[in-house]
Amino acid sequence: MDCMHHANDILLTLFIVFVAAQVGGEIAQRLKLPGVVGEIAAGCVVGPSLLGWIAPDQIASGTPLDVLAEIGVVLLLFSVGLETRLEDLKKVGKTALLVGVIGVLVPFGMGTLWAHGSGFDWDKSMFVAAAFVATSAGITARVLQELGALQRVESRVILGAAVIDDILAMLLLGVVVSLQGGGGIHPGNLLLVLCEAAGFIALVGWGGARVMRWNSSWLDKPRHAQSPLLIALALCLGLAYVSTLLGLAAIIGAFLAGMVASETRQQHLLEQQVQPLLALLTPFFFVVTGSKIDLHELASAEALWTLLIVTVIAIVAKLVGGGLGALSLGRRGAAIVGFGMVPRGEVGVVIASLGLAAGVFDNRVYAIIVAMSLLTAIVTPPVLARLLRPPTPDTPPAA
Amino acid sequence: MDCMHHANDILLTLFIVFVAAQVGGEIAQRLKLPGVVGEIAAGCVVGPSLLGWIAPDQIASGTPLDVLAEIGVVLLLFSVGLETRLEDLKKVGKTALLVGVIGVLVPFGMGTLWAHGSGFDWDKSMFVAAAFVATSAGITARVLQELGALQRVESRVILGAAVIDDILAMLLLGVVVSLQGGGGIHPGNLLLVLCEAAGFIALVGWGGARVMRWNSSWLDKPRHAQSPLLIALALCLGLAYVSTLLGLAAIIGAFLAGMVASETRQQHLLEQQVQPLLALLTPFFFVVTGSKIDLHELASAEALWTLLIVTVIAIVAKLVGGGLGALSLGRRGAAIVGFGMVPRGEVGVVIASLGLAAGVFDNRVYAIIVAMSLLTAIVTPPVLARLLRPPTPDTPPAA
Repeated sequence: MDCMHHANDILLTLFIVFVAAQVGGEIAQRLKLPGVVGEIAAGCVVGPSLLGWIAPDQIASGTPLDVLAEIGVVLLLFSVGLETRLEDLKKVGKTALLVGVIGVLVPFGMGTLWAHGSGFDWDKSMFVAAAFVATSAGITARVLQELGALQRVESRVILGAAVIDDILAMLLLGVVVSLQGGGGIHPGNLLLVLCEAAGFIALVGWGGARVMRWNSSWLDKPRHAQSPLLIALALCLGLAYVSTLLGLAAIIGAFLAGMVASETRQQHLLEQQVQPLLALLTPFFFVVTGSKIDLHELASAEALWTLLIVTVIAIVAKLVGGGLGALSLGRRGAAIVGFGMVPRGEVGVVIASLGLAAGVFDNRVYAIIVAMSLLTAIVTPPVLARLLRPPTPDTPPAA
Repeated sequence: MDCMHHANDILLTLFIVFVAAQVGGEIAQRLKLPGVVGEIAAGCVVGPSLLGWIAPDQIASGTPLDVLAEIGVVLLLFSVGLETRLEDLKKVGKTALLVGVIGVLVPFGMGTLWAHGSGFDWDKSMFVAAAFVATSAGITARVLQELGALQRVESRVILGAAVIDDILAMLLLGVVVSLQGGGGIHPGNLLLVLCEAAGFIALVGWGGARVMRWNSSWLDKPRHAQSPLLIALALCLGLAYVSTLLGLAAIIGAFLAGMVASETRQQHLLEQQVQPLLALLTPFFFVVTGSKIDLHELASAEALWTLLIVTVIAIVAKLVGGGLGALSLGRRGAAIVGFGMVPRGEVGVVIASLGLAAGVFDNRVYAIIVAMSLLTAIVTPPVLARLLRPPTPDTPPAA
């Protein structure tokens, strides 16, 4: 009898989201696409623009579905961190830095030029361009995980670069937001923010990993078999929160928590235990992401045309920027890294919402930027899968 | 960067709830109390009445925390169902029916008498009494699970009786609500509801179990290692929803889904996989339950006195009613079953909210009924633990 008076709707919604994800994932796999593409597409189908089984106010910020999606992506990045060793990341540090920096500058430049060419003034153009910048590590990470490719050098470059990318995007957003207000830029403040973020990452990633490598037997002591998991989850939620306090993505903190936990003796147990959590919760992230695509705003030839151009610019810019940074990995490696940095996912959506709220652009531009963010997320996985799958398509199987 | 603009608060709250549960659970275990008592107490401490780290509007119906709590208790009952075989339940069917029926009638009678004695008219007294009736299986189930006692005959009686209890309480609530409106009672409607509920349970519990026992190899076919879990979770969410459609608790559907899944070849795998889910999500249920206790409304000698009387009536009535029904299990068995049926938990809270909304009683009576519901939940686990733990205190260890 408990909760029968309010739980009906939410239970039905949970059921719909969960089943839609499974059906979408299954269909995608039969079409030889990564499951995540199917889950995002399923979200688009059950979302407000098509079937309407999920109402727009159910996926707004701070709703239960939105929070479940957030927990899902936090856990996903935690599990990716669990499979990432600090040692391995260090080896690719220089390449990741190059990919991160060039991968932010090129899209920002190209985005600004396009927006200015479409009639925005320079200040607003930079705001629009900010939505072109930040990579969403979640989608790429899931594809790399599905393909069992997290141990490849390209994957480590992508994950390292995604962290750097995130710091730069945050700074850039700070700059363009203060430009809109007409206020000047405070280089001192920006530097402070940059130092805080870098200090946090260094402290947690490097210091935490050292502590754990030194001694993690205390994780075994408390109550029961799930104890290491309980402590790791607390660490994950805590660092995710601290991360947002510093203006970084919650997923950066979760990723760091996973990296710290990967240095413990209980790493393999944790990897096993986190699987059911991912199975239950990550579908919410991908389905909710897909359900945010508003197809109605795009139902004109002109809008579709603009969307096509914007998406191509977003893909090419990141591919060129990321690829240039990763040239040291060879042509194929550079292509993998470049494509790995393409998905904007929810990051572009957040920036677009800010722009809409600030009156920088209207509903149509908003819908186009959101759709671009999600299209880059849908386009990437099949390409990455093809690039990463052995046997390589460059080599004929008989040769 | 994603979600940094709204996720801060909710991530902090998730962290607080999760850590509070672990700390409370750990302290309780050191005091030789079941962990769940510590989790509920921790909720009371971090909740609005003491520390206020959780705001009242964060635990209102339909908020993310409330939904996480609901998912937590649904998964908990699913896991209890996983450890329950239909065959075993059938063996205790008659006793469970007796416990369920007498365990509803005695508290309803005593509650009505007390309320009428306190100055309510008969119609309203029956509404108040309805809050005395419904057992919350969640808390007892968790204690039985913590003590590894789910296979005992008393546990099966309690779980069977909780299902019957829930159907009767739902019917009773239907009756008293229609009495308040001044409308007559429609025996036809009530019978229809009763038949629907019984039919649903029989169909799922009996039919589903047969299908699964006959063949469950198809669970292994789809995508990856988590497939049986994914299908079982979909079944769990789906049946939980259907359950609410029929006016039953969501947890009844979840319990049935678990029972169906317990007949599959993958039962042991599922039991393992569901553990991390419980570790993450059930703390939300118990902490949120605890945080709903409003200590301010109880800050007078008179209120405390009334609370004491109401709580004693609630405990004694259920103990007598449930115990009488289970006399066939011997004195100790009857006591275990009686105490197992005592917790009202969130069920009483829901009925109290309805009463408040309908103007049947004021804020103080509301707070008392809510506090009674939760007190019964806090009092039960240590008693049950003592009754269930070997060596039995009846026997001196040296004898």
